[in-house]
Amino acid sequence: MNGAESLVQTLLDGRVDVCFTNPGTSEMHFCAALDQIDGMHCILCLFEGVVTGAADGYGRMLDRPAATLLHLGPGLGNGLSNLHNAKKARTPIVNIIGEHATYHVEYDAPLTADIEGIARPVSDWVCTSADSTSVASDAARAIAASCVSPGAVATLVLPADTAWGRSNGPARVISPAMPVKPESSAVQDCVRALRSGEPTMLLLGGKALRAGPLETAGRIAVGTGASMRSELMAARTERGAGRVSIERIPYPVDQAVEILKDVRHLILVGTVKPVAFFAYPDKPSLLTPPDCEVHTLAGPADDLPAALDWLAEELGVRSTAPELQVSQRPDLVSGALTTESIGSAVGHLLPENAIVCDESITSGRGLHLFTRGCAPHDWLAGTGGAIGRGLPEATGAAVACPDRPVLCLSGDGSAMYTLQALWTQAREDLDVTTVIFSNRSYAILHGELRNVGATPGPKAHDMFDLDRPDLDWPRLARGMGVEAVRVDTADQFNKALEAAFATRGPMLIEAVM
Amino acid sequence: MNGAESLVQTLLDGRVDVCFTNPGTSEMHFCAALDQIDGMHCILCLFEGVVTGAADGYGRMLDRPAATLLHLGPGLGNGLSNLHNAKKARTPIVNIIGEHATYHVEYDAPLTADIEGIARPVSDWVCTSADSTSVASDAARAIAASCVSPGAVATLVLPADTAWGRSNGPARVISPAMPVKPESSAVQDCVRALRSGEPTMLLLGGKALRAGPLETAGRIAVGTGASMRSELMAARTERGAGRVSIERIPYPVDQAVEILKDVRHLILVGTVKPVAFFAYPDKPSLLTPPDCEVHTLAGPADDLPAALDWLAEELGVRSTAPELQVSQRPDLVSGALTTESIGSAVGHLLPENAIVCDESITSGRGLHLFTRGCAPHDWLAGTGGAIGRGLPEATGAAVACPDRPVLCLSGDGSAMYTLQALWTQAREDLDVTTVIFSNRSYAILHGELRNVGATPGPKAHDMFDLDRPDLDWPRLARGMGVEAVRVDTADQFNKALEAAFATRGPMLIEAVM
Repeated sequence: MNGAESLVQTLLDGRVDVCFTNPGTSEMHFCAALDQIDGMHCILCLFEGVVTGAADGYGRMLDRPAATLLHLGPGLGNGLSNLHNAKKARTPIVNIIGEHATYHVEYDAPLTADIEGIARPVSDWVCTSADSTSVASDAARAIAASCVSPGAVATLVLPADTAWGRSNGPARVISPAMPVKPESSAVQDCVRALRSGEPTMLLLGGKALRAGPLETAGRIAVGTGASMRSELMAARTERGAGRVSIERIPYPVDQAVEILKDVRHLILVGTVKPVAFFAYPDKPSLLTPPDCEVHTLAGPADDLPAALDWLAEELGVRSTAPELQVSQRPDLVSGALTTESIGSAVGHLLPENAIVCDESITSGRGLHLFTRGCAPHDWLAGTGGAIGRGLPEATGAAVACPDRPVLCLSGDGSAMYTLQALWTQAREDLDVTTVIFSNRSYAILHGELRNVGATPGPKAHDMFDLDRPDLDWPRLARGMGVEAVRVDTADQFNKALEAAFATRGPMLIEAVM
Repeated sequence: MNGAESLVQTLLDGRVDVCFTNPGTSEMHFCAALDQIDGMHCILCLFEGVVTGAADGYGRMLDRPAATLLHLGPGLGNGLSNLHNAKKARTPIVNIIGEHATYHVEYDAPLTADIEGIARPVSDWVCTSADSTSVASDAARAIAASCVSPGAVATLVLPADTAWGRSNGPARVISPAMPVKPESSAVQDCVRALRSGEPTMLLLGGKALRAGPLETAGRIAVGTGASMRSELMAARTERGAGRVSIERIPYPVDQAVEILKDVRHLILVGTVKPVAFFAYPDKPSLLTPPDCEVHTLAGPADDLPAALDWLAEELGVRSTAPELQVSQRPDLVSGALTTESIGSAVGHLLPENAIVCDESITSGRGLHLFTRGCAPHDWLAGTGGAIGRGLPEATGAAVACPDRPVLCLSGDGSAMYTLQALWTQAREDLDVTTVIFSNRSYAILHGELRNVGATPGPKAHDMFDLDRPDLDWPRLARGMGVEAVRVDTADQFNKALEAAFATRGPMLIEAVM
């Protein structure tokens, strides 16, 4: 058994059995090992940003890592921005980065680069294997590192000779420590805040946004009169009818400040202090008012269900009935195609158990409201702000959950970053419906230009408009084997979305606004 | 004048008047400055790998930098692999990376990342501006750093508040030191080698591959009986009829070793020791035989024309006639579409003064021979081995040289990495003909799998085949506004290529092999 085979076997033993790949020469032995050792599902992507974004979507849905297989520094570089998103989402991922043979690095061949240097800003753990007998144990450590609560990006650099040399067989994966309960003092501090009679808000993030802990938080809110909000960018929120509904802190700074202005106690559960997405002249970075006291019940790595249970217990609200979202769906609307008509259609038609990958940017800000009374579903948002996340993430989510329909909502600008994901959706026959909000602009930037107080002129605006020439999304999708339709009325959109949900396999709808 | 305006004015004063952009919120003041200060040609790209690849193509053609405008760490990350190529090509580039306002970084907002950490592996110079009064002088230093012989990647990180705060106006760009002549001892050492009577080879790279120094090297070769070769991956080679023709060191290690096996003296001119692109089991990293003495006439940063002139003078061969390439073009061939028939068509039809961006990988290895007798033209090759270079580089070369026809030769696999370049070609109406070698596979990897001694099986091969589903390049191109045709016979290809060269503007030909 060579190093590559010991690596593949260790991954499988550690339940890492999906690998999103874009391999090159340095990864040949890993590829060859796939024919020697059974059980790894390798999924080819035509660009590394698709590889890493898919691994992010997969890990968010299953709470365990997929592997990626990438080609030296440049291959990792192409995957960097979706690894940035994954790191901010605290998604478990094991990156395998092929490297030159150990003895070849000194010759500074064309592809030689500082791989660890490139990896470090987007990884929680980085290691380069020294020889073929340590690859397996390094892989076991990488899996463990990626599974540290709540999840982390682990990057293992694999020199070619460590893959082709002899190994001592697979290594055993040590389970990482379980997430811990909060300190009693933290719970008591939060109890005092919630009993203070002053306006108090629970701010939930990370795994506190799953249905169970959300329900407990809902009991606390009803029992104490506290309000509840979700962090702005949440990796995965379980929502819909019969669950506790939660609105997020808004993106526009003024709106966020307005919502928080009367809050005197902010209780953090699995998240950090709310801050502005960007700084703007004469606007605050920190969104809480100066006289707001911030309490941390539990950090993102802690046992959030246990923390909320404990708090509910101390408050005596464990059997208080939470306010559950009633089942309600908007009616379909006719006429012009608008963000509202699309929101109505999505809310009216979203299948039960759907996974929504939301990269709709400006066009989708109201979608939350249209869909909160739908049948239960998961909502995945952009955690790191790097665009080009939606299509790859939907791809990975569909691989993770082959029996669940996936809806990807994307701006046209953001979809162009990683459109190659469509090819993998076709190749794997994934049940993904992609809606492109085709406003032919980086619409958010027209607003941001005003926000920063800059004086807009024609040359600046020209940098934000994508209408010269117009993108033709059905052609782009069909060019990669995905069926597609362009619509420009609400009725056409309603019909197309219904048809897409009724049919298995990938489908793209370009909604021309 | 705010910091952003002082930056734009400093760039213009330093002759940096083209900026390839993919901006976001942190770059809004830079965009606004474009309407305040005249003269910057900003070119929008829909993905950052296109931005940086275009800047590489531009810099290679003009020997002066374009600017890039990128959005924080993730935007830089997306551009990383083509910056890797540019750094290896020693192309002058000035990157402007927007960053959060200085006071906002500590809040760890979603887009916060270690930008300098991401930049360092692909940059020769990195700086983050501290305040709005130092932006202009930092920009002046960035330009100077990028122009250090023979060219370098300079990255300036621009926090948003340094862009919107008040400046003291533009700063003066200090010209960097001129490249230096070699030491006399180095010249004398090379003279001795060339007069030794032992087999001697001149290995040329970088700017030694321009027509002038090549001619001098040709005189030395004829006058001394030395052989000549080019480095494997050359940033730009001036070639064609009436110039000195030079073949490169081959990519396959066995072929390279065979060519170098009898060489006793290798003289480096603007390049480094030839090494294997990858390491393979039981094959050498260093391509020269153990008894070959390596002499450095001049390094890549040195004054290469002066070094070769001096050497020619010492050898008394300054008026020796070099062997010049005769004008000859292959005939067009009919029948099946093969790499040979395509090579014949390119050789037969290539317009005078064309710029060839070669990312044809396996399909193009014979193209050199078919084109060496064409009218004078420039040939740009992959210096860093990161694929996804061809289409962006062609875009940048066409912006740099609007009066020259550009031919981009790309594998289908490599073209998929940065296909968004086609949209910019349409938007700017660039005279680029793109030929896609559509063999529906990462063909090079089938060979590499054998090279590394791995046992190929069906699962491994499945990772290298792009035929499930087939890509439809005409649809992809038209989806971005570029006219396109698919051909599968030699006659169809010949006709399509002739038509593309006869018409201004972008055109894509998918050659199905």
